[in-house]
Amino acid sequence: MSFERDNLRKMTGYASGEQPEDPKTIKLNTNENPYPASTRVRDVLDQFDVESLRRYPPATSIGFRQAAAELHGVNPENIIATRGGDELLRLVITTFVDPGERIGMSYPTYSLYPVLAQIQDCPTFEVPLNDDWSVPENFAAEMNNAGVKLTFLVNPHAPSGHLVPAEQITQLAQQLDSILLLDEAYIDFTGEKATSPALAVASNNVIILRTLSKGYSLAGLRFGYGIGPESLIEPMMTKTRDSYNLDGISQQVAEAALRDQEHARKSWKKVISERTRVQSALAEMGFIVPDSHTNFLLATVPLGKRPAEEERVEEMDNAETLYKKLKERHILVRYFNAPRMQDKLRISIGTPEENDRLLNAIREIYGSR
Amino acid sequence: MSFERDNLRKMTGYASGEQPEDPKTIKLNTNENPYPASTRVRDVLDQFDVESLRRYPPATSIGFRQAAAELHGVNPENIIATRGGDELLRLVITTFVDPGERIGMSYPTYSLYPVLAQIQDCPTFEVPLNDDWSVPENFAAEMNNAGVKLTFLVNPHAPSGHLVPAEQITQLAQQLDSILLLDEAYIDFTGEKATSPALAVASNNVIILRTLSKGYSLAGLRFGYGIGPESLIEPMMTKTRDSYNLDGISQQVAEAALRDQEHARKSWKKVISERTRVQSALAEMGFIVPDSHTNFLLATVPLGKRPAEEERVEEMDNAETLYKKLKERHILVRYFNAPRMQDKLRISIGTPEENDRLLNAIREIYGSR
Repeated sequence: MSFERDNLRKMTGYASGEQPEDPKTIKLNTNENPYPASTRVRDVLDQFDVESLRRYPPATSIGFRQAAAELHGVNPENIIATRGGDELLRLVITTFVDPGERIGMSYPTYSLYPVLAQIQDCPTFEVPLNDDWSVPENFAAEMNNAGVKLTFLVNPHAPSGHLVPAEQITQLAQQLDSILLLDEAYIDFTGEKATSPALAVASNNVIILRTLSKGYSLAGLRFGYGIGPESLIEPMMTKTRDSYNLDGISQQVAEAALRDQEHARKSWKKVISERTRVQSALAEMGFIVPDSHTNFLLATVPLGKRPAEEERVEEMDNAETLYKKLKERHILVRYFNAPRMQDKLRISIGTPEENDRLLNAIREIYGSR
Repeated sequence: MSFERDNLRKMTGYASGEQPEDPKTIKLNTNENPYPASTRVRDVLDQFDVESLRRYPPATSIGFRQAAAELHGVNPENIIATRGGDELLRLVITTFVDPGERIGMSYPTYSLYPVLAQIQDCPTFEVPLNDDWSVPENFAAEMNNAGVKLTFLVNPHAPSGHLVPAEQITQLAQQLDSILLLDEAYIDFTGEKATSPALAVASNNVIILRTLSKGYSLAGLRFGYGIGPESLIEPMMTKTRDSYNLDGISQQVAEAALRDQEHARKSWKKVISERTRVQSALAEMGFIVPDSHTNFLLATVPLGKRPAEEERVEEMDNAETLYKKLKERHILVRYFNAPRMQDKLRISIGTPEENDRLLNAIREIYGSR
């Protein structure tokens, strides 16, 4: 006999990217920032009053929320601080979607969304993206026709890096009958001023997800936040969120890191510059690499013949084989065995040295000089 | 129009105890440990590798789980680490109870349980405790007859401090058709060797909750854990838990604190000794104060006449008035405006100085010398 709920018994959990302990592995598979977090993080830990841990932490993370509100020109009431973006995704579902109701998303998308939907026992409804990863014109109409209660849209898109134009986002928000959860986990790497917080706060149905995991080099801290109208933020703050969802140490670390915009912006700039370089280098080797607005590239692996070398002519490796051969060389990238993904690799942007190691390894595997 | 789910619209969220910023307030209202955490916490922060935060933290908190497994003589597979005990309570519900199914508990009990049940849209079923706060003989039978899927039992009991004997717990676990969540948040203050981890692991239906908030003076860290058979721990670990539910810093802090048993045990001993002293002093003033196995006392406020002073004879203050008069003197205790609680105050055990301040304030209020 099993005590597990039926919907859970039928499902498998979310599979995160590999996290090898091995320090010599070059990790370009889970989109971490290759540069370290602000030096203010060290200061916070040095100055942290351990005695304060005896007591419960600030219940609503007010210090962090004030910092985020200042940064985005909104009120603290428009901000909810969460244990990584993941907690916000879960809260949006458990607050606004009843079991049995539909949750909408694009295909492909962040693979955690369908898992969270299954936990709440909600069917998913998928609208395929266009070939160039843009969002189809009829996206909102399809969601509305399907009676979707919550629509997830990751922008810039994962795993492609495509950015939906701001005007289209505004239009989508207006057209959708449902809540729009705009997952902006990678927005810091767009290189443009993001205008969406104002859009969310002025709306009655848009919640924006932000995270310190990527742009602030703090994946290990598990700190994210949501921005939206008070009507949507308040029930998550006062009802569905675990009371005291964030500990006293990480609240202070997150606030310090968010306030050090100068440091963060420098890392974004370096990542963007390397992204351009890696994109060109891969394109030169025959990969198809669309422009990315994130800290990763989605590259279609060339399947043509190798340049003729005397009489030997071979098929080139497919994406899965290339993934494996890179892994043998201690370089991890992400391969998704999923429709439209099987000929592609998702490659996080590393430091210049890491990227060189990757590019050299691919050159070596492909036998070109 | 509201997007909120119906069950949430109808409910109010959990109200935690007051957390005043004011440093001169004596806080005896939320059962925090009056002594600071292990000095090893400072060492962990000093030595923490900030660069490691760039990457995702260990996904399953394996270091902490190994420490907890060693402490309790079980396997790491029998342990789930959670963001405070609260996360475990939520996971037990979302993993094992479908919306609409019943969740059982005693009355009175920890006031978070019914709130979590409402979030999952589950009706609650309450069995009243006996007058001496012991668990009635027919407790399991009543739960089974009501078709309860999950039974919460806090032991030692909150808010009374009563301890259910180990034999009765064993019997309950065997009799219950449901999962038994044994909330041992206060077990460290029983002064006895707890045998229940072995019981849980050998069962197919018992999960024990432990927390570092009270016994390890780390309420601000938000770190707890569950102990149980792998059949119950595994679905929470691999499916319903947010992947990366615990950040890299708090995993290390929690492990260090748990491993410093000597430090923790010293604080438990001091709390127990003060508990006895405060209990006697309150009893001398006419309060009815049953034995407690926790770090708080549930004291019934005497309602008789004041000792005759010349001709003036007054009714003494009731519990709510006493709570308010103590608050005016910057001493916070907990008053519950709920059935069977209205004539009582729950008083956390503080340092000897804090307890003296409390006792003197009550003497002053009651005009006795």
